[in-house]
Amino acid sequence: MAPQYAPSLRSRLAPILLLIQIAFIVIYAFYFEIDNHIKERDGTAFTTFYSEFQDVNTMVMLGFGFLSTFLVRYGYSSSGFNLLVAVMAVQWALILNGVESWYYRGKIKINLKSLVYAEMCTVPALISIGTVLGKTNPVHLILIALIEVSGFVLNEWLVHIIVKTRPLNSIMQLHIYGTFFGLMLTWFLYRKGSEQPFEKEKLSRNSGLFSMLGTLFLWMFWPSFNSILEDNYSLERRLGAVSSTYLSLAVSVATAASVSIVTSPKGKLNLVHIQSSILAGGVAVGVAMPVVHKPWEAMTLGFVAALLSTIGNKYLKSHMALVFQCHDTCSILSTHGLPGLLGWLAQFLLLKDFDDHTTAIRFAVFHITSLFITLSLSLSTGIITGILLKWKFWRPPQDRKCFDDQAFWEFPHLAVQK
Amino acid sequence: MAPQYAPSLRSRLAPILLLIQIAFIVIYAFYFEIDNHIKERDGTAFTTFYSEFQDVNTMVMLGFGFLSTFLVRYGYSSSGFNLLVAVMAVQWALILNGVESWYYRGKIKINLKSLVYAEMCTVPALISIGTVLGKTNPVHLILIALIEVSGFVLNEWLVHIIVKTRPLNSIMQLHIYGTFFGLMLTWFLYRKGSEQPFEKEKLSRNSGLFSMLGTLFLWMFWPSFNSILEDNYSLERRLGAVSSTYLSLAVSVATAASVSIVTSPKGKLNLVHIQSSILAGGVAVGVAMPVVHKPWEAMTLGFVAALLSTIGNKYLKSHMALVFQCHDTCSILSTHGLPGLLGWLAQFLLLKDFDDHTTAIRFAVFHITSLFITLSLSLSTGIITGILLKWKFWRPPQDRKCFDDQAFWEFPHLAVQK
Amino acid sequence: MAPQYAPSLRSRLAPILLLIQIAFIVIYAFYFEIDNHIKERDGTAFTTFYSEFQDVNTMVMLGFGFLSTFLVRYGYSSSGFNLLVAVMAVQWALILNGVESWYYRGKIKINLKSLVYAEMCTVPALISIGTVLGKTNPVHLILIALIEVSGFVLNEWLVHIIVKTRPLNSIMQLHIYGTFFGLMLTWFLYRKGSEQPFEKEKLSRNSGLFSMLGTLFLWMFWPSFNSILEDNYSLERRLGAVSSTYLSLAVSVATAASVSIVTSPKGKLNLVHIQSSILAGGVAVGVAMPVVHKPWEAMTLGFVAALLSTIGNKYLKSHMALVFQCHDTCSILSTHGLPGLLGWLAQFLLLKDFDDHTTAIRFAVFHITSLFITLSLSLSTGIITGILLKWKFWRPPQDRKCFDDQAFWEFPHLAVQK
Repeated sequence: MAPQYAPSLRSRLAPILLLIQIAFIVIYAFYFEIDNHIKERDGTAFTTFYSEFQDVNTMVMLGFGFLSTFLVRYGYSSSGFNLLVAVMAVQWALILNGVESWYYRGKIKINLKSLVYAEMCTVPALISIGTVLGKTNPVHLILIALIEVSGFVLNEWLVHIIVKTRPLNSIMQLHIYGTFFGLMLTWFLYRKGSEQPFEKEKLSRNSGLFSMLGTLFLWMFWPSFNSILEDNYSLERRLGAVSSTYLSLAVSVATAASVSIVTSPKGKLNLVHIQSSILAGGVAVGVAMPVVHKPWEAMTLGFVAALLSTIGNKYLKSHMALVFQCHDTCSILSTHGLPGLLGWLAQFLLLKDFDDHTTAIRFAVFHITSLFITLSLSLSTGIITGILLKWKFWRPPQDRKCFDDQAFWEFPHLAVQK
Repeated sequence: MAPQYAPSLRSRLAPILLLIQIAFIVIYAFYFEIDNHIKERDGTAFTTFYSEFQDVNTMVMLGFGFLSTFLVRYGYSSSGFNLLVAVMAVQWALILNGVESWYYRGKIKINLKSLVYAEMCTVPALISIGTVLGKTNPVHLILIALIEVSGFVLNEWLVHIIVKTRPLNSIMQLHIYGTFFGLMLTWFLYRKGSEQPFEKEKLSRNSGLFSMLGTLFLWMFWPSFNSILEDNYSLERRLGAVSSTYLSLAVSVATAASVSIVTSPKGKLNLVHIQSSILAGGVAVGVAMPVVHKPWEAMTLGFVAALLSTIGNKYLKSHMALVFQCHDTCSILSTHGLPGLLGWLAQFLLLKDFDDHTTAIRFAVFHITSLFITLSLSLSTGIITGILLKWKFWRPPQDRKCFDDQAFWEFPHLAVQK
Repeated sequence: MAPQYAPSLRSRLAPILLLIQIAFIVIYAFYFEIDNHIKERDGTAFTTFYSEFQDVNTMVMLGFGFLSTFLVRYGYSSSGFNLLVAVMAVQWALILNGVESWYYRGKIKINLKSLVYAEMCTVPALISIGTVLGKTNPVHLILIALIEVSGFVLNEWLVHIIVKTRPLNSIMQLHIYGTFFGLMLTWFLYRKGSEQPFEKEKLSRNSGLFSMLGTLFLWMFWPSFNSILEDNYSLERRLGAVSSTYLSLAVSVATAASVSIVTSPKGKLNLVHIQSSILAGGVAVGVAMPVVHKPWEAMTLGFVAALLSTIGNKYLKSHMALVFQCHDTCSILSTHGLPGLLGWLAQFLLLKDFDDHTTAIRFAVFHITSLFITLSLSLSTGIITGILLKWKFWRPPQDRKCFDDQAFWEFPHLAVQK
């Protein structure tokens, strides 16, 4: 007979976490130092940078966590594990991003830019986790995060070496990387019977509002997310990124609402679909940023992205579960995958100022290669991680305990009757 | 017999939204461009501006929406429709505010300043919506927003032409404009029987806390709201606006709490009254900004504004419903109207440095004219909108479905028993 | 027989609040003015400062309030009284901090720096209130705040006079001051029978999430809290403070999670313990800031602080209640006290660059004296306040009404059945 209680994580989570954390501290002790040579113009950078850094920090630590609190019995886990995974992934990303600096200079410097870069490298992990949310335990999530951050940093390095893209452009591949990594994961971790929604995979009035709150923080601060890595000294490009993202997100809201109501037989809005889809414009513009120069381009991207995303949310999720055995809790494919691919495609359509035919073909080859590298790497690392996580040693929660905080959290004083 | 379900908005909301949105994209394609000539000193402006822009953005997109989540069954609509209305109104305001630039230069430039200006022009619409919250559908709300933004921009233009006020001063009329527009609306849309509170017009513990959260974001970031349009290169004036607003808001909290407890027979605080009234100081100081130079002036304004607002919340709301058939869901008259008028009055009392008697009279005439224009325009556009919205074509929700998310939102997986 | 209803605060809270508030306005009218001579380099300071000021503002007004909304029936009071106490304490702290300026120049200037300084002086009061939360009424809380802010400003002045510490260093004593003041308070206000948790001293799913939200805002913005008072013109030191605090907080999250799971027999996480303990790293690094120069130092501090804090949360709280009759609602001793003392200790262990033995001893004596002053002053003012609050005149809530919003808030339209 199956055990009545969720398997204890005491002998798994605690030693793994402690071990990794202590290893991190040791590595930092030998190789890291705080950047203490700020040049005058970097002084201005601190000033400019800090409020945007906090916007991105809020998105990563609060936004992504609360976005997924819509699951009625999984709010503690959604928000808590997001924080736990993010801090582990950030520490790991700081190390990986510093390898080159360590190789040449023996030391890795920490400053606001490296912190924000590390936070962005953790975002693919937070995205992927959305696909397996509620069906995994925190040990799984930490393993996913560490492997995925490694793969993503490797991906950036490969793209940089082979295609010579600037890091600023390649980092926005994070949406595509995170999505396909996550889809492989959830495909490998598929549980029989999840064609039907899980018993506890539903929302309540309050959990919907918490989720709304997280979504709004993502939505409001997305302009910072897309602009922060634009070259510091070119304020024009940052302003362009902010304005484009803002307009694109605005159009996404209107589009998501109208498509949601059109596709509903009773003419009602669906909160969860809308929450995912209003972010689609930010994703698409982020990926296509180098070629978006006019307001209407950003707005059209926002329109098409939200259209794809809302339709994807409505029809694709159940289809994926039935046909491909891919149960995607937070509809990551529709929220980040489709808009990300759209942004990639938009770079073809919107790029026009080529000197000659050869440059155009050269760009096309490089652009396709870059996507190809990202897809192969995300799919392959996703498969490897999926295989690793199948191992029963990690004590996955039973089906009955999926989407339930009580598997992981004490409820000693929980009010029985509210 | 009345239909059992709320009337479907499928054939109303979707086409209207899509049509307007596509029209916006077309207009933007022809006339808009992103500002890409930032001068050196504007560079500093980007730096200074961006964090305040995000504060205002948080107020508009999250603050006003969550402020009205106190309605226990209307949280999705309060926060979601606020976002929807805000993005439509911002896009429309960008167009209207750019008409002059388009006329002279053929193009409208988008930068942080025009974005923030557009957000401020949408605030009157968000305020007015508070009066009819729960008794309208999103089609109504979008119509209100578009008409009201047009009226408000027209009002600013008229005040500027006739009274020669600087736009920075006239924009704070938004509180007065929004209130009286909203009162006219709710008077026209009055439903029989709403002398008694509606069945679902109540709050729960959790909805009260969500509302507290939205209020706090408004309260904390109000100094940014009042200071952001002060001249960029005069940091002294911005600092003055920040300090005055901060002190005024602080005094409002203490005053609202003590008045709320004095007027309660059992000596208890009323959460909803306090939430509205702690913001009164920010409204009053915002309107009276040009003449507030000393801390005590700001504090006294905060004190009187909160006093008026709390008493208004306690006695005026039910009175208005009974006598004037004005059912004002969010007590907009007490929250924005009375403090706004107080701020207007304060400009008389606090202005002292006149050269001679003639200037004083000249100022008085201009000041009264300015209020007169705002009031006439807000009342008349409010009446026109009210008449338009009476049209059954827009499918207003039935009385039974007022203040209920289920009229507009799908609850497919809603947990029956939480 | 005991009265059935909570004692009315109408005749206590209202006159006290109004009187103090009017007194403040009068004082401000005579002695305060808004700083209107901003030098060029202060201009940059406004720019840099404002976004960090808003971060600290968010922590003080929203973060501390929502941190303690985990109490299921005490959310209105936790968040509302926090705001009320904070605004009274800030106004009082502005006066006390300005006494010197008033003495020499006759006027006290208000600018962003003095506002932020005043907000930091109110933090000890907000910390102490955590120990007596739910067992006091707002009159108590305001008295606590006014006395404690006075004591803390006196403490800073004494430390400055006797030990010649820079204010920037001594202000971080606020964690130690707040804790021991609070412990004395709760010891004096001990209620018989509170060895067992109170009937309503428990959390629900939603109250846990509100609390998570408040905690996250504290956690995310703590780098601003620790860096904002570092010398403005030394951006290197501010960057150092930001990076150290960030790393320390990150390590605290991982440590708190693993210790919480190790000490739980069923291998489950405890939300309230984790929420308190993830902040421990920020406290410890804040206190030890002058000597933390390397990333590993910050991380090790974060590790040990979270270890102490989680173990303290697990075992110390009930022990304190049983043995010392100290019922510490928010586990302030473990959240702020132990990490604060650890930070103090770390200054001994990490300081190494002494010229000679004499300087080292000199530092040691001064450092111990400084702690000694803080402890004596916090304990003695705590005892005095405790004795004052025992007075029945303030109408403390009955045991049955502890941890219950209904003692202080109207619930007229409260949905009976949600």
